[in-house]
Order: sequence, then structure tokens, then C-alpha cells
Amino acid sequence: MISFARGAPAMECLAVDLLADCARVAVERDPAVLAYGAGGGYGPLREALAERHGVEPARVIVTSGGLQGIAFYFEELLARRPGRVLVEAPTYDRPLRLLARLGAEVVALPMDGEGLDPDALERELAAGSTSFLYTIPTFQNPSGRTLSTERRGHVVELAAQYELPVLEDDPYGLVRYEGDAPPSLRELDTAFGGGERVTYASSFSKTVAPGLRVGWFVLPVDLAGALEERAVSTYISPPFLPQATIHELIARGGFEPNLERIRGLLRERRDAMLAALDRELDGRASWSRPEGGYFVWAELPVDSSLLLDRAVEAGVIFVGGADFFPGGAGGERSARLAFSYESPPSIDAGVSSLASLL
Amino acid sequence: MISFARGAPAMECLAVDLLADCARVAVERDPAVLAYGAGGGYGPLREALAERHGVEPARVIVTSGGLQGIAFYFEELLARRPGRVLVEAPTYDRPLRLLARLGAEVVALPMDGEGLDPDALERELAAGSTSFLYTIPTFQNPSGRTLSTERRGHVVELAAQYELPVLEDDPYGLVRYEGDAPPSLRELDTAFGGGERVTYASSFSKTVAPGLRVGWFVLPVDLAGALEERAVSTYISPPFLPQATIHELIARGGFEPNLERIRGLLRERRDAMLAALDRELDGRASWSRPEGGYFVWAELPVDSSLLLDRAVEAGVIFVGGADFFPGGAGGERSARLAFSYESPPSIDAGVSSLASLL
Repeated sequence: MISFARGAPAMECLAVDLLADCARVAVERDPAVLAYGAGGGYGPLREALAERHGVEPARVIVTSGGLQGIAFYFEELLARRPGRVLVEAPTYDRPLRLLARLGAEVVALPMDGEGLDPDALERELAAGSTSFLYTIPTFQNPSGRTLSTERRGHVVELAAQYELPVLEDDPYGLVRYEGDAPPSLRELDTAFGGGERVTYASSFSKTVAPGLRVGWFVLPVDLAGALEERAVSTYISPPFLPQATIHELIARGGFEPNLERIRGLLRERRDAMLAALDRELDGRASWSRPEGGYFVWAELPVDSSLLLDRAVEAGVIFVGGADFFPGGAGGERSARLAFSYESPPSIDAGVSSLASLL
Repeated sequence: MISFARGAPAMECLAVDLLADCARVAVERDPAVLAYGAGGGYGPLREALAERHGVEPARVIVTSGGLQGIAFYFEELLARRPGRVLVEAPTYDRPLRLLARLGAEVVALPMDGEGLDPDALERELAAGSTSFLYTIPTFQNPSGRTLSTERRGHVVELAAQYELPVLEDDPYGLVRYEGDAPPSLRELDTAFGGGERVTYASSFSKTVAPGLRVGWFVLPVDLAGALEERAVSTYISPPFLPQATIHELIARGGFEPNLERIRGLLRERRDAMLAALDRELDGRASWSRPEGGYFVWAELPVDSSLLLDRAVEAGVIFVGGADFFPGGAGGERSARLAFSYESPPSIDAGVSSLASLL
């Protein structure tokens, strides 16, 4: 099976020997890795991340993967600020499922090639009470789209004007193959709004290894305390070994070279995916051309769920677009094609196979 | 500060170099440790635990520490079987806080030196609908008490008769210094009730290292699937590195010798605590004499919260008994004294200090 479904790095991206050594050294250097500790995560990693973001370490919470922290954020915000939850359409399916489990009323904001539409955001903010906005502004999952710098400014202005909490989920931002990175919403909020609206979330899943399950959150002060309390009452403290392994990788200067290597491996895959789509589907479908991340979003001439059934029989799997719309309302002719997991020749073969079914 | 509050193993118990090497080998041997995987935990560890318990691996769920899985169990049972939750009084405070957060109605069952009173359990079962029973039958936290074998049989019979789900929390059972282990409730349920009532929970926090955060659950088939779904939707998969480190320790035959070493270190501490109590407080207070575990439960001639205030000033900390009763209703003159964390000389000094305040 050729998988365009897995939003995971190819196995070649995982620096096995390097991370094995980092794990060993992390334990030998600091036996506290083996003991109970702070619910908000491994201290030295919190400090390193706090320095990167220019905040106090107490404002950084490290969770076992980003999704765990997203769940804490959702639970906390819905408890303290009941109201509608605003999301992009399409958006990452797992948070949609969390919101459904929590019984949240979810409002979908339309997107175009430049990301979410700030005018639609403003209309919804004016229409009634909202709990928060969940957004993935860079190399979005599933669309691969990036919110333009101008729109980022507009979103942050609206957040200040309407006192809207924003969760900026950014696991892919560092996985950039070309072009300049726009400022994060959190950076803009800090510069212009005091940094009290936007919570920034990221993860080492896409830049080091997903199985280590290390995500982090940069939060307004009061929210950081509340999330740490939720963490303590759910699991006392997170496992420090994976977090200390990442910290050791950073401390020995290994993070940036490893990221550059991963960028190279994934850039080849992005290029293979776009070249194969250009060759096989020009004029029959359209797709995003992301400067980074893991995903291409394709608009197809057919229902993607029907194509998926036939594709699986032919040995290719992807995720149909409807999975990424609240309530499945939309995306029927769309597909998320992850280029991150397969080798370039497999990507080429998989796209050819899909094209033959259209 | 001398801490009788921390229910954690002394730092000397942590096999730093051994676990550092296990972590390294775990990654080198199986790069899948670095990838996304099953929500129910690291496959080879699930298989090893399943073999130990004589069940299919799908019935074993490994979570990041026991408390995380206890939270999943509570959420699942309260959703599928609304009703009162039965607990021992006293009992572990963190699950009480989870139950309070979930809005559960908690009913406290009285205990004596042989553990929970099965007649009281039967009265509550006859009195109205119950969701489940949460019990720590061996070297209980906080009392150090162990449910007698006869009562275990009675509890399992009642569970079958009333179709009562039971969560048997057993993190301390293997930390036995003398005497024979009674059968677990799960073993009795499997022998006499088909194994569909009792979920068994344990952890490597007390037998290897708490910071690794590896707990496990042996569940009835339908509950195992439900808990794995909750895990997936909360964190995709748990961090495999700590779980694979434990698996490597087991696979190389290191678990039992390490446990024997920990037993020796903690037996000395238990003995130091009992000797100091005998010397300092004979006739003025009473306390449990556990054959294992981490805790002594003391009945004092004064209010333990008042003693605690003065003890902290004198450099000794413990946990007052009221923390372990639902709603704080009880335990005012009791104290949990953990002997696991401090050295024997510190234990001796700490007890002397407490005695001087009484």
C-alpha cells in the first residue's frame, strides 16, 4: 500500500543512532529524568523553549504530543468561556473530533489560497459569543495553505478588538523548503496586543520524531497555570525521557542540522508529488503548491470517497476531504495527499495509479 | 525538609546507568519507537505484559503512568454506566480529585485492618445503582493495608452477583518485603467469574522509575477497545521510548534483579520507620505495619492538620489524613507517612521530630 494518508515523516527522517545516544546521555546526565517532576514538562526543555520564544519558562507547557495539549486548551477555554468555537474549513480532523466529544458548537470559517478569510471571521465575531479560534496558519493540515502576512495582522487586530483567544497550531512552520517565513500570530500579538490573546502550539513530531510525542505551548500567564493544573491532575507529570532526549539534541547543537536534513528529504518528496501531479493531472484537477509542510490539497473532478474506495483496491490510500470539515459538510471532491511518508519513486507510482482511476 | 509526603522511590532506587543503556538499545533495536503507533501502547511491552497476565495483548493498554489510564477508565465507566462510584475510605487522593472533576457521586466504604468491609459494599450495592468500585487491595495508598484473601473472594462474588465493574489498582503489590502475596481480584474473577468484571491496573512507577510514566491495564475485551479509542483521540499514541526502555529491561532479564534491589532498599526504610515509631510513639499513637508498599498510616492523638503546620516549621512534611477521604470527611487525626523517599537516618530523625511535637 502506498500511503498518502499518513501525515508522518518518512522513516529515513528519523535519526535513530543520534536519538538513541541522546536518550542515553539524557538519563546519565540528569537522573531526575527518572523521577516525578513538574506537570508542565521537563524543566531544561521548558527553559530552552522559553528562551527561543522570549518568555518566562512558566509560560511554556510541554505535553506528550501536541494533541494532548490541544485537548487541555479546548477543555479549559470551553469551561471558562462558553461559546462557539471557530475553526478553518477544512482543518485538522483530530481537533474536530475532540470538539465533537466536548459537545462544542463549531463554526467553520471559509479559506482560500491565502488562508482563512478575516472578513468571515469578523462577521462571526460580531454575530455572537465565541469561545476561541483554532487555526493552523502555516502549511495548514490538510490544505497546505499559509495565511498571508497581511491577513495575520488582520486576525490579530480582530482578536484584540473582540478579546478573542486564539490557538495558533504550528507544527509545520519550521518544515519550510523555500521562501521566507511570515511572522507568527503570537509574535504579532506580542508586538501589538501585549501577547495575551494568542497561544502558540508546536511540536517536535514533524521536525525530530513523532513517536517521542513532544509538543509545546506558549501561553498567556493565567492559561499556563490552568493547563499545568490540568496536566498534573491527569497524569502527575509527563514522561521526561522523550523530552530530555529532545533537550539533549538541542543542547549538543543537533537540532538544526537534523532539521536541515529532514527538510532536504521532504523537499524531494514535495517536488516528486508536484511533478507527478503536473504530469498526470494537468487540466483535470487542481492542487495547492505549498512551500513547506507535509500536505498537498487536491480538488478532483469526482467524489473523493468513491475514488478512495477504488484507490485502496489499487494499493493507494489518501484521506478524503470531507474528514476535514466540521460535520463532514464540504470537501466531497477534495483530497489530502501527504507526501511526507513515501519515497519519491513510490509517490510517482501512487500519483500515476490515482490518475489512471480518474 | 524531610519528606514523608512523597510516595516516590528514593533516588538510590533508580537504576540510572542500566536504564540509560536500556533507552539507547530500545531505540537502536526498533526505530518504530520513534514513529506513531498504536494508541494502546508499545506492542512488545503489551505482549510481555499480556503473557505475564495470561491474556491477549489487545486486552492490555499501556498509558503514560497509571493515573492517565484511571482517568480514561473513570470517564468511560461514568459514560456507559451512570451511577455512584464506590471507593475505600481512606483512598488515594488523586483519583478522588478526578472523580470530583467529573462530577461523580462518590460513596466511601469503611475499612479496617483487613481492608474494605465487604458487608458495607453489599449494603451499598443493594441500595441503588452504582457505576463501579475503585479499590487498592494491596499495600493501599494511603493506609498500607492489604485486603485479606477471604474478603477478596467475597468482593469478587459480590461483583459477579451485582454485575459490578471493579478497578483493582495495584501499583505496590510487587513491592513486598515479607509474607505471601494474596491472589489479585482479577485472578479470582478470572477463576470464578469469567474475568469480565475486574480491570487490573498497575505501574512501573514503584518498581522501576516513576518518571518513565508507564502504567498498564488488563481489561475486559470491550473496555480495552473503548480505552484505546480514548487514548487515540487524546494523544494519538503514547510516547514509546519510556515503554520500550521498560521492555528492554524486561527482555534482558533486568526487571527482577532490579526489583529485588529496590525491595532491599525500601525494606530498610520501612524497618527504620517502624522502629522509630515504636521507640518514639509507643502508647501515644497507633500505626499500620505493612508487609510491603510505601506507606504507614498513623492514628494520632491530635488533629493532623495542626501537627502538619508545626511539623513543616520543624522541617518535616507528611500528608494529613483528611486528604484521602471523599469530601475531606474523615481522617482528621490520621496521617500518611511515606517511608519510601528518605534515607533510614532521615526517617529516624523525622519521626523523632514529629514525636517531639506531639
